[in-house]
Amino acid sequence: MEPTVLLVRALDLVGTFVFAISGAALGVQRRMDLFGVLVLAFVTAVFGGITRDILIGAVPPASVGSWHSLALAVVAGLLVFRFSGLIDRLQHPVLFFDAAGLGVFAVAGTQKALDAGINWPMAAVLGMISGIGGGMVRDVLTAQVPTVLRADIYAVAALAGALVVVVGSAVGLPSTAVALTGIALCMFLRLMALYHGWRLPVARSGD
Amino acid sequence: MEPTVLLVRALDLVGTFVFAISGAALGVQRRMDLFGVLVLAFVTAVFGGITRDILIGAVPPASVGSWHSLALAVVAGLLVFRFSGLIDRLQHPVLFFDAAGLGVFAVAGTQKALDAGINWPMAAVLGMISGIGGGMVRDVLTAQVPTVLRADIYAVAALAGALVVVVGSAVGLPSTAVALTGIALCMFLRLMALYHGWRLPVARSGD
Amino acid sequence: MEPTVLLVRALDLVGTFVFAISGAALGVQRRMDLFGVLVLAFVTAVFGGITRDILIGAVPPASVGSWHSLALAVVAGLLVFRFSGLIDRLQHPVLFFDAAGLGVFAVAGTQKALDAGINWPMAAVLGMISGIGGGMVRDVLTAQVPTVLRADIYAVAALAGALVVVVGSAVGLPSTAVALTGIALCMFLRLMALYHGWRLPVARSGD
Repeated sequence: MEPTVLLVRALDLVGTFVFAISGAALGVQRRMDLFGVLVLAFVTAVFGGITRDILIGAVPPASVGSWHSLALAVVAGLLVFRFSGLIDRLQHPVLFFDAAGLGVFAVAGTQKALDAGINWPMAAVLGMISGIGGGMVRDVLTAQVPTVLRADIYAVAALAGALVVVVGSAVGLPSTAVALTGIALCMFLRLMALYHGWRLPVARSGD
Repeated sequence: MEPTVLLVRALDLVGTFVFAISGAALGVQRRMDLFGVLVLAFVTAVFGGITRDILIGAVPPASVGSWHSLALAVVAGLLVFRFSGLIDRLQHPVLFFDAAGLGVFAVAGTQKALDAGINWPMAAVLGMISGIGGGMVRDVLTAQVPTVLRADIYAVAALAGALVVVVGSAVGLPSTAVALTGIALCMFLRLMALYHGWRLPVARSGD
Repeated sequence: MEPTVLLVRALDLVGTFVFAISGAALGVQRRMDLFGVLVLAFVTAVFGGITRDILIGAVPPASVGSWHSLALAVVAGLLVFRFSGLIDRLQHPVLFFDAAGLGVFAVAGTQKALDAGINWPMAAVLGMISGIGGGMVRDVLTAQVPTVLRADIYAVAALAGALVVVVGSAVGLPSTAVALTGIALCMFLRLMALYHGWRLPVARSGD
């Protein structure tokens, strides 16, 4: 158990950091000032988890009760602000870690919701929200329709990872293996969507 | 009491379903993918109630603690996605049920807030939020100013229904009659606004 | 202590009122109807404090548990709606009181978070959110990128006031003097930014 906990904890920090980078990068692109960039970094990194914690009644939320997420987000935001050109060149590794962060957040979020006694369909939804919530608010704060609602298999990948946890927990499989499987499935779907253009259908609309 | 509880419960399901339809319809119109449509359906259906529950400290909120709203919203979203043409033709019945859902959500939300010991002015506001919250977020997520802030007597109808509950509760009238009166008043105002163009004044502004 | 409590309470009411005015003024400018104007007034006045209270688990939030903020916001909204021309001419005093409200909200919010046992970095962030949250939602509801993310030393002034409280509390200085110092620093920074155009750096971006 111990090594897995360490692994998940490490991935959680990586996820926080990478999500903060994606928020900060959008802030720089929109020519926000340093403070706006840091806010976007922090909000993108923690909003999903905070939403989940509030909905299951776990207050103060983890990233309010400790200062670690804040520190990580500030460091990420400062780096992006200072080396904004570099981020463009690092697009590919960023997307890879973003997929990892998505999987970790979705899996850990689902487990936390199940532990709080939430029914499994909503636990999966809460896990998904943990993964995609930050990006949604990042987009709302920059006045655009959240990307996650329009394109790619982003949220669906998070949901798939969440469902692995739900099923594994129901069947009683060892939680370590379940968590790693969920993260791997989420990353696989997300990276396939990125590199092979997998997409969900769009309704034919008379508009 | 028993038949009224059943009636309110039935109307609550209808309200959830119709609100989900309105969210899904907007998602299809904006050419979101299937997942985006389902998210908008769910968020529109439950956001108002979730906001109310969080504000009165009732966590996990009703639609997180059970999977019924989620299931209803998914069904509604799938129907809209598959038969998006049909929705346009059903505009009138949809608006009618939407008015019914608005009234039910506002009345039930006010009652729940009063039961939680909230003062009456804020209980009425929380009831109104239960009714209009979903539509507001639906609009924010599609990057437009919430319709409810700009036009029609939508929120005011919800507030009127909520105030009926507040008054009825203060005077000690039988809750069944009060609830039905509140719902009826809300529906009446909303339908009048729709069919006769009733509107609130707009301030003259130098802009 | 007693006179300071009275002072902070008075400033809190002034802050609520002025924030409500700024929300209502934007609603009138966007040609919202009377109801939309009142909603924007209320949301701008209370959203920051409500967010803080939810995050520290203080439910129902202060402005839900009492009707005072609601009443103040409605009065402010009605005044702005009726005398919208006047507001333009009062721009300067409004900005002055807005700076005062910002300082009061930030200082009181930080103190409340510390009292709830939150770690100091996040307590300062929660204080800042108390000050800037309302304006952010006001901007999101009118479909624009929150001003606070783009310009002026608005949020930074709130954060500076919050940090004064954090430091003062750690060192054990008398809370009255600390609160007044925090408010004064916040107002000073904000007014300097307004009248001398102080700004934070913006990253050079390849866009």
